[in-house]
Amino acid sequence: MTARLKPAEEKKEYYALTPDSICGYLAGYKSVASRLGGSVSQWQAKEVGDGNLNLVFIVEGPKGAVVVKQALPYVRLVGESWPLPLSRAHYEHLALVEQSKHASEYVPEIYEYDEAMALTVMEYLSPHIILRKGLIKAVRYPHMADHLGKFLARTLFFTSDLHLPAPEKKRRISYFLDNTAMCKITEDLVFDEPYFDAPMNRHTSPQLDDIAQAFKKDARLKSAVQDMKWRFLNNAEALIHGDLHTGSVMVTEEDTRVIDPEFAFYGPIGFDVGAIIANLFMAYFSQSGHEKSQGERAQYSDWLLDQIQVLWAVFEHEIFSLVMKRNEKNPGGDVYSPRLFKDAPSLAEITAKDRIQKIWADSLGFAGCKIIRRILGLAHVEDFESIENPDTRSSCEKRALAFARRLLLDREQFSSMNDVVEAAHEN
Amino acid sequence: MTARLKPAEEKKEYYALTPDSICGYLAGYKSVASRLGGSVSQWQAKEVGDGNLNLVFIVEGPKGAVVVKQALPYVRLVGESWPLPLSRAHYEHLALVEQSKHASEYVPEIYEYDEAMALTVMEYLSPHIILRKGLIKAVRYPHMADHLGKFLARTLFFTSDLHLPAPEKKRRISYFLDNTAMCKITEDLVFDEPYFDAPMNRHTSPQLDDIAQAFKKDARLKSAVQDMKWRFLNNAEALIHGDLHTGSVMVTEEDTRVIDPEFAFYGPIGFDVGAIIANLFMAYFSQSGHEKSQGERAQYSDWLLDQIQVLWAVFEHEIFSLVMKRNEKNPGGDVYSPRLFKDAPSLAEITAKDRIQKIWADSLGFAGCKIIRRILGLAHVEDFESIENPDTRSSCEKRALAFARRLLLDREQFSSMNDVVEAAHEN
Repeated sequence: MTARLKPAEEKKEYYALTPDSICGYLAGYKSVASRLGGSVSQWQAKEVGDGNLNLVFIVEGPKGAVVVKQALPYVRLVGESWPLPLSRAHYEHLALVEQSKHASEYVPEIYEYDEAMALTVMEYLSPHIILRKGLIKAVRYPHMADHLGKFLARTLFFTSDLHLPAPEKKRRISYFLDNTAMCKITEDLVFDEPYFDAPMNRHTSPQLDDIAQAFKKDARLKSAVQDMKWRFLNNAEALIHGDLHTGSVMVTEEDTRVIDPEFAFYGPIGFDVGAIIANLFMAYFSQSGHEKSQGERAQYSDWLLDQIQVLWAVFEHEIFSLVMKRNEKNPGGDVYSPRLFKDAPSLAEITAKDRIQKIWADSLGFAGCKIIRRILGLAHVEDFESIENPDTRSSCEKRALAFARRLLLDREQFSSMNDVVEAAHEN
Repeated sequence: MTARLKPAEEKKEYYALTPDSICGYLAGYKSVASRLGGSVSQWQAKEVGDGNLNLVFIVEGPKGAVVVKQALPYVRLVGESWPLPLSRAHYEHLALVEQSKHASEYVPEIYEYDEAMALTVMEYLSPHIILRKGLIKAVRYPHMADHLGKFLARTLFFTSDLHLPAPEKKRRISYFLDNTAMCKITEDLVFDEPYFDAPMNRHTSPQLDDIAQAFKKDARLKSAVQDMKWRFLNNAEALIHGDLHTGSVMVTEEDTRVIDPEFAFYGPIGFDVGAIIANLFMAYFSQSGHEKSQGERAQYSDWLLDQIQVLWAVFEHEIFSLVMKRNEKNPGGDVYSPRLFKDAPSLAEITAKDRIQKIWADSLGFAGCKIIRRILGLAHVEDFESIENPDTRSSCEKRALAFARRLLLDREQFSSMNDVVEAAHEN
């Protein structure tokens, strides 16, 4: 399946599907009909979207099932008063097509895409559940960290200047440059609103009132966060997913799939790495809040910290290997070019590690931003929200906030994920 | 005058002008004809281009004169074997139009632009000379550093996220995204070729053989240079001139004009600042080579170092003032937004200074790259080249190379231009 490069203009053909209208719509696709089996009258559809933005349907037939994701022209969570362009479906599709070239085992298969309807028909993942929900229930996923590390390394390496010649890379930047409405959500909610009295902010009150106020007056913290925002706005390093939290990952014990790249654009590599690390740390900080007896989740908490170390180690190893595999015959992209290291492979290793070190510092900085915004901004996470007792919840959140602040301020000083995990223990 | 946003396709109407054909061509422009005065037969044209790429004509009539700059479809210095797209005239024009909005007093006035002919008719600057030539002759330009500091601050601030909302900024990025052929010249010649045995490299030999070899094996240096290349490829911070050396500046004692922005694209702010600083330092390091008696140029050398300090101080002050002038009514761009600092202007100052500090470190890194490539790469500068005695020349070049290396390695440690100037003294 090839992808169109420009989003269609929003046309009149668009209408929002319902469980009643969707089967008739899908019958028009032979590939989908044969996948579902039987006749249209035997198909059953339900709307299951629990995200903030879109409609999501599961449609089942006698032979199989598919998922249909359709964008709405507004933010579902808020309503028509917050419009959001349908073009995000276009960018999501374009990103999925690109990701599947490099990491097909970690994304859902796409069956059909209808630009005018802002709609994708894709693989029904079963018995997968949302990773965040699994972590809240203290389920272990033995391959998750390995899979995510590889997904990150491959999708980011192959869309960066490490692999692509500059003119081709710039062409690809242009395909995503207009996804500004989605970027703006991140720019506002992640980098700005938690740091002033934005009307939609909320936090566990009164327990976190002091820290929320203190963060707004913290010059070093605000400098660090605005520096990360500067990088988000300017540094078009690779095609990033743009919203890679644990709610964008579906898992079984064996399988891991990354979904929902509608925020995709060319941005800083560390933004994706930091997002998933941040969400795993939030899972960690929330564990004690889910305990029925004290210490019940201690081992699981340690397991979570181990996974963060594995994820980074796999990412680091994988991207390093991809850089080092380049040679003068297959030089890849235009930075750290093999021609610079003809008789000196050890120099190539040193420079590649230097680059990864910079991605590392960025990742920690973005991770800090992502944690803070989930506790003091508009959009919170179930990890903390499902802790009913506000004293318990706020004590988890406080630890996470102190840790996040340290990630931002010391992002260039941490020398290993081991040190970061130590810092999480200390907070 | 408004500018087209996309370059025209290269058409058959294009032909390279000559001193014989240019007057007939210009007669088609009423505005030019009235500026030159008299009749076509009274006009006199000469080709004066001494740059590497283009044709440049001065056309004089009874009443006045104009300059005509026309791109050739190849690199003039090398010939038709090195093709280069005419579209660079388009990007140059687009950049000149943008720069003149923010710093009209420091760019030439544009009279006419012919896209198909890849040609601009512009102000004839007289009695201006190329800044580089003035510095070689030890001429003092009392306003040059102040003017260049302001030119940099204004053109870079007003095209960055400090001033532009993100969607508008991204739209502007797209206008320049295809200027890849020009970027590629910089990518190859500045960041790569001096660091391997590229066929077109040259240096003062045998005097610099050792240092040229040592630089190719210097892991820290190569890491630093590739990091700067990564920033050049990725960091679309502002519309940069892209080739701001002292040969791209025309001066009198009173007036300063920046010309030739055909390398323009959205890149790192520090690239322009670093380029001009690098070239002023090269002027400094070359001074002793131009002395007829020892010490003759000592005072002028000190004056040059003072100018570098003034240039940075003016740039810093000007961009800081522009950031701090923003307020909730006129919030400007999407970073360091005034809404973050409503009741805390002192926090706004701290964060703005933090950003400038990062531009500073980038500027020093790019300055280091620019010096090294002019001594070990393909394209050299007259400051050194005009020193005939190779021992004298190489001793100037050696000092510059050692200083440039230090700029790259210590770019985040230098805390003021005073310290940088001290380092120049030491080398």
